[in-house]
Order: sequence, then structure tokens, then C-alpha cells
Amino acid sequence: MKLSKNNLDQRLSHLYDAIVVGGGAGGLSAAIYLQRYRLDCLAIEKGRGRSFWMQDLRNYLGLPPDTAGRTMLQQGEKHFLSLNGDYLRGYVEEVSDEGETFAVKVKVGKKDSIYRVFRSKYLIAASGIIDHLPQLPDMQNVYDYAGYNLHVCMICDGYEMSDKNCGLFVGSESAINTAFVLNWFTPYITVFTQGLFAVGMEMRQKLAEHGYPLVEQPIKRFLGHNHEMTGVELADGSTVELETGLVAMGSHYHNEYLQGLDLEWQGHNLVTYDMCRTSHPRLFALGDLKVGINQVSIAVADGTLAATAIWRDIRRASQARRWEEKIEDYGAVS
Amino acid sequence: MKLSKNNLDQRLSHLYDAIVVGGGAGGLSAAIYLQRYRLDCLAIEKGRGRSFWMQDLRNYLGLPPDTAGRTMLQQGEKHFLSLNGDYLRGYVEEVSDEGETFAVKVKVGKKDSIYRVFRSKYLIAASGIIDHLPQLPDMQNVYDYAGYNLHVCMICDGYEMSDKNCGLFVGSESAINTAFVLNWFTPYITVFTQGLFAVGMEMRQKLAEHGYPLVEQPIKRFLGHNHEMTGVELADGSTVELETGLVAMGSHYHNEYLQGLDLEWQGHNLVTYDMCRTSHPRLFALGDLKVGINQVSIAVADGTLAATAIWRDIRRASQARRWEEKIEDYGAVS
Repeated sequence: MKLSKNNLDQRLSHLYDAIVVGGGAGGLSAAIYLQRYRLDCLAIEKGRGRSFWMQDLRNYLGLPPDTAGRTMLQQGEKHFLSLNGDYLRGYVEEVSDEGETFAVKVKVGKKDSIYRVFRSKYLIAASGIIDHLPQLPDMQNVYDYAGYNLHVCMICDGYEMSDKNCGLFVGSESAINTAFVLNWFTPYITVFTQGLFAVGMEMRQKLAEHGYPLVEQPIKRFLGHNHEMTGVELADGSTVELETGLVAMGSHYHNEYLQGLDLEWQGHNLVTYDMCRTSHPRLFALGDLKVGINQVSIAVADGTLAATAIWRDIRRASQARRWEEKIEDYGAVS
Repeated sequence: MKLSKNNLDQRLSHLYDAIVVGGGAGGLSAAIYLQRYRLDCLAIEKGRGRSFWMQDLRNYLGLPPDTAGRTMLQQGEKHFLSLNGDYLRGYVEEVSDEGETFAVKVKVGKKDSIYRVFRSKYLIAASGIIDHLPQLPDMQNVYDYAGYNLHVCMICDGYEMSDKNCGLFVGSESAINTAFVLNWFTPYITVFTQGLFAVGMEMRQKLAEHGYPLVEQPIKRFLGHNHEMTGVELADGSTVELETGLVAMGSHYHNEYLQGLDLEWQGHNLVTYDMCRTSHPRLFALGDLKVGINQVSIAVADGTLAATAIWRDIRRASQARRWEEKIEDYGAVS
């Protein structure tokens, strides 16, 4: 059921089979599978994750390519609730390993917040990432275009940028190398650094050899209308016309709550082994948070794998059910 | 475009980047990704694969749980065609490795069949499996219930069998062990061997200990109406009441066309490495055909991985595009 400040206290003494941190594509897939394995699961979603912002989910089998990310998430939440899963809007602040259980501390409510601790045998970290965007004085101007024709994922939207005049917005010199992959889709690339860092001679030369202009002035604002970005206005008042853009400024990883645990990392990504299990045997990581390709399809399959592994663990540790032992509420969600 | 006997000769001298054998969940996902990577792809579908028969796709994120498998496949085919992919109804008879290319021999048309050879740089084997069903004199009687409440996949439909009186239909003694996993979902299991094989004393004892009856008579027919199976009638005219069933009689693997190639197998499954690549560097395997869990979500993600690996290979072997080199049809599907 849907938990809120009003009813969550009912669940404080309950031991969940699994708590899923994150109600994006990976987390919802895991949560649906867990309930269907007759395990009981609490999914905790802070809201406004990466797939929530996708205007068009162009490459996920079964949904029309103009389906919004949030439509998929709403369907998944409804699906999970129909299976009697518990769903809570909240922000996971801290997870501690108590040996056999995890204690998951959640902040609920942005105003008059309350803090509560839920417990589970297994934890699924599916809290994902969010892309850094250019920081302009008027952020609404950025949000007007981000997720429309100002893209954040080349695999998702490279096709939409095909042979278009494209701005590449970067926050570090190494990110400029994105241009030399993006040129598979379009060679009409202008690189914008916003003056955030110095560009070395070797990179300048490489860009020049490819014919990709480098713009190092701060950006005043994006130009365009109706969510269609048509260029940028620079600090000196000059403008650069564009037809599309790719932001490659890195991402924020929603992994703060895991910092107290002893886990294996590769940069900001969690390292996982068979079935998305991390170096901690009762902790799984899915989707963008783990090492791998950041795609909805991958996160959804990761959810399948983690839920299946948890089911196998719990099932193998359980008594076999004989025909005689008819226990009415066995495995059911209370 | 949609190929048929009338227009396929246009493509006989064309070298595809990839040919995808199988238009199920994995194959269509791969094909959509390939086209979006600006590669060109032929998908060949023989029709009536495993997901085509699914009445309800109960665990795939984003689609309502009562979505039929064929609805997902139709959406995927439409999606792929909208990206200018080539789609052919046909049966792949043989694949031969010509060193840099694969030659794929296809039979088109069940009546007045014609045989043609298409060529590609990469091959994606996504032809899947089909479940063996009980062989009864009237097969329509089996088809009336298979995919409804006579299930073939425990992970998909175990939840639907929860605490129901369930028939387990097996074709070998080892398959009887399915009962000792199925009992997670329901302990009310009756095992039907149809007299196809002898059951050893140890297994008889194990079944008896669990309270699971063993029925060794041939089955005359399934009972029920309106796609709801309610029991079986046995050879001696007696009946056994059931509320649901699971067929665990193994599967036919659609891999005959691969037999001439030097590939690594694990039983009937193809062994794959990173990104679903088989032991052959230009051949990928997806979904049920490869080692792993047979789920739509897994096949869809496999398609993402294989297409991405092929794109990386081809991109890295290509010339970088400079701004000056505006080539109008670069990478486009001709």
C-alpha cells in the first residue's frame, strides 16, 4: 500500500524481505518481481529521478517511442501497488548493516519532515544518478530545454541529433572527448566550456583538426521557444545557432546513504557480480548506480536479476512446503 | 521496410551491418537499437515464438500486466519499421561464415517457398525456444489452455499459481524436481508423467514425503472451458481436478541454423561473454537461446548490449567525421 506520514508507523516493527531504494526503472522492476516471488518489499522513491525527466522513451521495447519516462514510472508504481507492495515517498538518509538486517533511515516530507527507520533482510540500491546541467543565473531557462532537444544521453538520443548542428556542453577537458564519439551521429559539433576549465594545446589542436569550434565564454542563456533550443547567447552578447545539444557534464550519484557500508566501488559506480549482487552478500545495485550502460532496458533487467537472486536465497533457506501443511498466510504480505 | 517475396530481391546485393535472427523481445530490442545507432539491420522472424503465445505479460515494467505478448511484439515491429529497418517473415535455414561476412539462407513462404541468401557483417542469434507441450491426440485441446492457466514458466506465472491445486506435467524424472521449487508458490502439487518414463524409488519416496501425488497414466484430455483448465481426464476415464498447471517438459531450441559454426555451447544454450558476444567475435546471442534466465526483460536488455557492442566495433573501425566532410548519406539506410 501507499505509505505516508499518516500510516507508516504501522510498518516500523515489520521486517521486509527487501527494501528498494529508488522507484525508477530498475527499482520498480525489482519491486514488481519481488512481490511476484511472494516476498514483501518496500520501495522508497525520493521523486524526480533521471527517467522522470525523459520526455520520450525512444528505445524501450513495447512502449511507443514518444512515451514519457514518467508514464512508464506511473505504470510501474500502479503495477507494484496492485501486487500489494509498500511504496513510500521519502529520502533515504542512511543505511546501517545490523548483521542479519539493514536499518534504513528515511526522511519523509520536505516540510515538517519526520524521520523513521525501516528494516529489511536485503537492500537493493536503485537510486540512480542525475545529470549535472549548465548552471545559469536563470535555471528555468535550462529546464525549458533539458530532456527536449538539449539531451543528456548519447545512446538514448544520438539518433535524434543525426547530422544536426549540435552544441556539446562540457565541464572538464576529458569530457571534450565525447565529441569524438558524438561525431558518429553528427560532425557539426561546437564545444562549450563556459570557461569552467582550461583547455590544453593538444585538445585544441585535435578539435581544430576535426573542424569543431571551441567556445570558452560563459553562456548567458539558451535561446529558443516551446522547448526547442535554437542556440545560445554568450556573455559578450553574441549568439551561436544550434539545432540540438548534448550536455556531458557528469552526474551526481545518489549513493550518500551507502557511504557507511563496506562496498566495492569503481569511481562513483558500485561494482556488482553475478545477478547484480555487490561485494556485500545482501546488497544489490541496479541500473545507473552500478558499473555498466545507463539505459532503461538494462535497469529493468537488473531488477529481474536482483529480485531473482534474493528469492533464491530466501527460498533455499526456507522449509519445503508439504501438501499437508496448508498455512493460509504463508509468504503473503501482511 | 517490410520485405516480402515481391521486393526482397532488392536487398540481395546489400551488405547489412547486422542480421537479427528472431523478431521476439530480444531481437526487436537489438534491431531498434541498431537502427538508432545508424546501423542497418535486417530482422528475420519466423512467427509464433514463445512471447507471441503469452496471454499476459505480467512482469515487464511499463506495460499493464494484462498486455499480451503479441501486443508488445507488434509495437516493437512498428517501432523498428519507423526507424527504417528491414523486416522479413521467413525461416533461417543456414548461416555460413565467409570470413568478413555471414551468409544467411532464408526460406520465405510456407507455400511455394523461395530461398534467398542475405549478407551481413554481424549476426545476432535471437531465435529463442519453444516449450514442449503434452502431446495429446487432439492438440487443440492443449492449445486451448497453454499460456492461459496452463503455464510454461514458473518465474513468469508462479504468482498466479499461488496456493492453487496445480498439475505439474513433466517429461523426465529430473524435471520432477521442479516440484521442489514450485512448492514455494503452492504445495498442492500433483505430478503427471503420462507414463513417458519410469520413476525411481528415491523420487517416489521424496514425492510421498512431500505429499505430492504421482499420476503415471497417459492423459486423455484437459478439462475446462473458456481457456480455463479445471483438470485432466486420464486414460482409464478417471479425472483429477486442478485449478492451474505448469508444463515442465523442456524446450525446443531454435538453433539448427547455427550448427555449421564453431560456437561454444552449454547444453542447448549458447555461452556468451561481455555484451552477449559468443565465442565468435561477430556473433551475438540473446535471451532464451543463451545461458541465463528466460525473461522478456533480460532479452530486451541483451538486445541493448549486443547492439551497443556492434556499434562500438563498427564505429571504432570507421574514420572520424570532420565538420568539413558533410556526407549526406553517411550511415543512412539505403
